[in-house]
Amino acid sequence: LARTVAGLGQWRLLGRFLPALQNRLSRRVAVGPGDDAAVVKAAGGGFWVVTTDMMVENTHFRARWTSGEDLGHKVLAVNLSDLAAMGDVRPAFGVVALGIPPRTPVSFVDGFQRGLSRLARLHGFDIVGGDTVGAEKITASVAAVGWARRRSDCVLRSGARRGDVVMVTGTLGDAAAGLAIIDGKRPRFSAPDKRFLLKRFLRPVPKLALAKALRRAGPPSALMDSSDGLYRSAVLIAQASGVGIRLDAARLPVSGPLGSWARARGLSPAEVALTGGEDYELVLTAAPAAARRIEAQGLARAVGTVAAGRGVQIFAGGKKRGVPREHEHWSNHSQG
Amino acid sequence: LARTVAGLGQWRLLGRFLPALQNRLSRRVAVGPGDDAAVVKAAGGGFWVVTTDMMVENTHFRARWTSGEDLGHKVLAVNLSDLAAMGDVRPAFGVVALGIPPRTPVSFVDGFQRGLSRLARLHGFDIVGGDTVGAEKITASVAAVGWARRRSDCVLRSGARRGDVVMVTGTLGDAAAGLAIIDGKRPRFSAPDKRFLLKRFLRPVPKLALAKALRRAGPPSALMDSSDGLYRSAVLIAQASGVGIRLDAARLPVSGPLGSWARARGLSPAEVALTGGEDYELVLTAAPAAARRIEAQGLARAVGTVAAGRGVQIFAGGKKRGVPREHEHWSNHSQG
Repeated sequence: LARTVAGLGQWRLLGRFLPALQNRLSRRVAVGPGDDAAVVKAAGGGFWVVTTDMMVENTHFRARWTSGEDLGHKVLAVNLSDLAAMGDVRPAFGVVALGIPPRTPVSFVDGFQRGLSRLARLHGFDIVGGDTVGAEKITASVAAVGWARRRSDCVLRSGARRGDVVMVTGTLGDAAAGLAIIDGKRPRFSAPDKRFLLKRFLRPVPKLALAKALRRAGPPSALMDSSDGLYRSAVLIAQASGVGIRLDAARLPVSGPLGSWARARGLSPAEVALTGGEDYELVLTAAPAAARRIEAQGLARAVGTVAAGRGVQIFAGGKKRGVPREHEHWSNHSQG
Repeated sequence: LARTVAGLGQWRLLGRFLPALQNRLSRRVAVGPGDDAAVVKAAGGGFWVVTTDMMVENTHFRARWTSGEDLGHKVLAVNLSDLAAMGDVRPAFGVVALGIPPRTPVSFVDGFQRGLSRLARLHGFDIVGGDTVGAEKITASVAAVGWARRRSDCVLRSGARRGDVVMVTGTLGDAAAGLAIIDGKRPRFSAPDKRFLLKRFLRPVPKLALAKALRRAGPPSALMDSSDGLYRSAVLIAQASGVGIRLDAARLPVSGPLGSWARARGLSPAEVALTGGEDYELVLTAAPAAARRIEAQGLARAVGTVAAGRGVQIFAGGKKRGVPREHEHWSNHSQG
């Protein structure tokens, strides 16, 4: 029987796809596939930081709940988040490809354009080219290039060391609740809370300034974004760094609206915060002194520690818990 | 009634999409959206040349007729062709995004990887990152960055001048016949001819070395690739340059296999050569002396002239003919 992509599973597929890409790269490639973005030495000094992310209708969004402007914003935001996840990186330029079913209203395309351009301008990012093609489902792909002055401005996933503190910015799980609301899971609770959660899913904010500030205050020893959820980020940092990670479920930052939503659905907010993806917060590790400086500036909070061993363990109130169940959504924003 | 993308039409949609992208670009952008690729000034001197192209199942290819290796090859080839279409540009690095239905065999993904890597290595091109996402139809998107030493190494669409000669490399219409064969239009004729036409569609060759040679022998005054057919290339060069173009249908370079195929179907080979897309040849204009140098080196042949006025006129044996009917295939590879 021929093995299918579904049979292999998302993470093993990537594990197969990326190493093959890493073969025989030239010496100008400082960081190849497998981190949030790749790093390429520029001819005149400095480094280009390069990433791509694709968003597909029904995998990443529902056309009914996502305006053209939302999609234009988000497909660029997730790419800029990959640049932020590399450290002190200045967004420079990129290109966009848009697949559109013929019956799509022109206003959707105009909105897409608007959402994209607004976010680009906000970050001094130039969209220098585009491709529009026919497709059965709306598909948007952006490739983004940023600029780092020094190699040390880039913080990889592989730098976590035993004794480091694991930290996250912002709050977790909001976007997952927003997605669940879109998918019909709408308990009765306050409308402003609902709007907050939806916005967290539809309009993620790339944490570029925060990444720069973390790099200066810390620096972090490892850094990535939380696109696929804190638990998955921790797994990937632990793998890349050859360490173990212990997360404390009781310390995960949970927003008020997520708390209300989870309670209304009879769920544990910590569980949603642990595995929910698409928040585009930053997940990092830092040596204790650096972590204290980061916390003192209010940039991120501690949620765990880097330990000996391998893999990620979850604790709650000092008691070890099982491995959480992740949502295999066939999307993935974790690669450069 | 809401206007749809189909109602607006492919070319007008692009005309709407691209100028909006051109708003407020920073000064480092030397050539913005609208040519085969964009040109961005590099910090340390030189220029980055940037393009993206997306390929979607059932728009650009049929899964039954396209192996993973074919797709990996082609999606990179069409991007490298955009770099070639900018002149003397050295391929540098790029990223790939792949949308895949869960039921896709893993062997397809492995083949995709192989086709991509082989072509990349051949051109000293580094694939530095990738994204794999779920999708209902196979969708592949590449963004490619090349390098030009001087701004004058780049040849735009806008440089054609009255009195210039219009030229093309290779032969035209082969890929369109290959696509027609895939779509079931398979008259009885020789198997090697069929294989040739299919290969021209499935495995286009980016003309990077040829573009460099043209730049040195000529230089051309305007240059682009023939991704959407010679007629469409001529329309776009005429528009961008503010000139008229006269094409001589009797002079179009037609391969033996295309001649056999067209005759077997009762079609005019010149008609197929005029509008058929996906050959990824180069279309250029050059001042008469430069055109003679180019022809003397056997790099391209003359198929028309740049004239006063606007738009593209077709002549055959000295007699003017009507505007050819183009295939609106909802694909487009003509933008940076």
